[in-house]
Amino acid sequence: MSLTVPALVTASAGAPFERATIDRRALGPGDVLIDIAYAGICHSDIHQAREEWGTAIFPMVPGHEIAGVVAEVGDAVTRYAVGDRVGVGCFVDSCRECETCRAGEEQYCLSGNVPTYNGRDADGTPTYGGYSTQIVVDEAYVLGIPEGISLDVAAPLLCAGITTYSPLKHWKAGPGTKVAVVGMGGLGHLAVKIAHALGAEVTVISHTLSKKDDGIRFGADHYETGDRETLKRLRGSFDLIINTVSADLPVDAYLRALRLDGTMVFVGAPENKQSFRAFSLIGGRRSLAGSNIGGIRETQEMLDFCAQHGIGAEIETIGADDVDKAYDRVVASDVRYRFVIDTSTIPAR
Amino acid sequence: MSLTVPALVTASAGAPFERATIDRRALGPGDVLIDIAYAGICHSDIHQAREEWGTAIFPMVPGHEIAGVVAEVGDAVTRYAVGDRVGVGCFVDSCRECETCRAGEEQYCLSGNVPTYNGRDADGTPTYGGYSTQIVVDEAYVLGIPEGISLDVAAPLLCAGITTYSPLKHWKAGPGTKVAVVGMGGLGHLAVKIAHALGAEVTVISHTLSKKDDGIRFGADHYETGDRETLKRLRGSFDLIINTVSADLPVDAYLRALRLDGTMVFVGAPENKQSFRAFSLIGGRRSLAGSNIGGIRETQEMLDFCAQHGIGAEIETIGADDVDKAYDRVVASDVRYRFVIDTSTIPAR
Repeated sequence: MSLTVPALVTASAGAPFERATIDRRALGPGDVLIDIAYAGICHSDIHQAREEWGTAIFPMVPGHEIAGVVAEVGDAVTRYAVGDRVGVGCFVDSCRECETCRAGEEQYCLSGNVPTYNGRDADGTPTYGGYSTQIVVDEAYVLGIPEGISLDVAAPLLCAGITTYSPLKHWKAGPGTKVAVVGMGGLGHLAVKIAHALGAEVTVISHTLSKKDDGIRFGADHYETGDRETLKRLRGSFDLIINTVSADLPVDAYLRALRLDGTMVFVGAPENKQSFRAFSLIGGRRSLAGSNIGGIRETQEMLDFCAQHGIGAEIETIGADDVDKAYDRVVASDVRYRFVIDTSTIPAR
Repeated sequence: MSLTVPALVTASAGAPFERATIDRRALGPGDVLIDIAYAGICHSDIHQAREEWGTAIFPMVPGHEIAGVVAEVGDAVTRYAVGDRVGVGCFVDSCRECETCRAGEEQYCLSGNVPTYNGRDADGTPTYGGYSTQIVVDEAYVLGIPEGISLDVAAPLLCAGITTYSPLKHWKAGPGTKVAVVGMGGLGHLAVKIAHALGAEVTVISHTLSKKDDGIRFGADHYETGDRETLKRLRGSFDLIINTVSADLPVDAYLRALRLDGTMVFVGAPENKQSFRAFSLIGGRRSLAGSNIGGIRETQEMLDFCAQHGIGAEIETIGADDVDKAYDRVVASDVRYRFVIDTSTIPAR
């Protein structure tokens, strides 16, 4: 029998959020029922709720940065028990059969994985995300949140954390490497913390110096602005540039800031096409690349790493009534550094 | 005492080639004097002779695909002896001190290496290339051409060969990998031969099927055209795409033809900026990269590999009087697959 649970629902593209109830599927043998404590607000929630990324499924309950506690487990569940601290990220299922899923890279599932919201389960039922009080998820897509990270600052790690951790690991950030992080928002501030904890020398490149003190506190060794003169001075500096911003960038100038064999990785998706001169790649055997969140195994690795190194997101906790306003502030880059919804405020009073 | 040697000289941007003489430096202790037998015509010769790549040095003697025989060696020369079959590629010196040179990647010398022509030696003297009968080069920048490749088909390996071999090796083309070669010209036809010899499954993507029989003969397993429908059918196919063409390409469609972690490498430089959507990189953790010729050590490795596998360029041999016409034919893509100048035709009759 399905569960009826309180949620924050947007009825159509750009419509304000309203308190309502949604149905969650009945607990299957492999499922975990999670009492959601906190749900982060990701910029991609806004793009989807406003239908800026193609046709979306409404009514919509966004949220793929979910942290909570296990309330109940199905008969066949082996990994989690009632009371465990757990999280859910950007997807809740995948085909489990393609070479990509078998390699533990479900984020690139060749059949397309099932997004935590604005997607459809295998049986066609729309998925609803974390702006809600409970969720039912197959245990294979549930992450354990280690003791030592509180649930509120852990929530954003499930998307923003893994989105930056995965490329930092894939392109081998560590002692002796120089990493630039472009943008100091929800993604960027975690990229700085993680790259620093991995042992890399970290430079933030932001449009202003307004967050410099924070950047240094998060572990940045240098803090620069992205103007032409600065980029010119930084030529040949970096092994890796993690670009977290969605604005148009002078890609060639950034490429020239890379050393031999350096890579500039896009983890955010600018609305417009970006352009480059082939010479900027050819000189120095440089690469432009992209990276999309991470697989389940790597997401768990990231959570364990963050717990070990005392890394959580910098957050501003809000209630259910403040989500519309928070969306506007995210779009205006007016948040240090991630909004997290306290889901106890969602049920109607 | 410097040597006066016959050469084909262009006096100014786009001026026809004329027979003249140039000075080569006197043989230093570490130098090798080479009797040039053949010089390939590279498309970049044309760009430079027509001053399409920024200010050039005139009078100019192009040519960086040089094959010949050692005529004399300096007192300190240890690697070569009179009579040895040798080649010279795109550069004739580099700083030898930067980390890149020390790593044997002199093509990316941080001080800029000394191009074989249209450059300046350490003392400021302009360099003159292979459209000539003799050249003096430091032995450290001279390659050995193994028995088993004749000098005429070896000449183009010094640029076109290494330009394609280096990225194929760097991005690990081999058994079990699928490689696409975009363009079937001077670079492309060698990319096909080398990728096939490395054990990769090779697909040519050309604008027409007119060279299909040749492509299959050179070792291609598949031969396709680059239209939208074909690229759509090829989605998720390749580990590596070597782009040898200078025309504008639908970069996103090519990126989507890559598998997870696949790379599209530019080895030719289109005149215009190319554009891409970040999503094309993010979905599948794909990369766009560039690669520039190769270092001395790798160029020797390539020549040895080609000798082992019986690989030479497909050439059309021409005399000194035909160079201007050959340039026009290269621009019109009317050559199968590389022009090589028989330098015995250069001295005035």
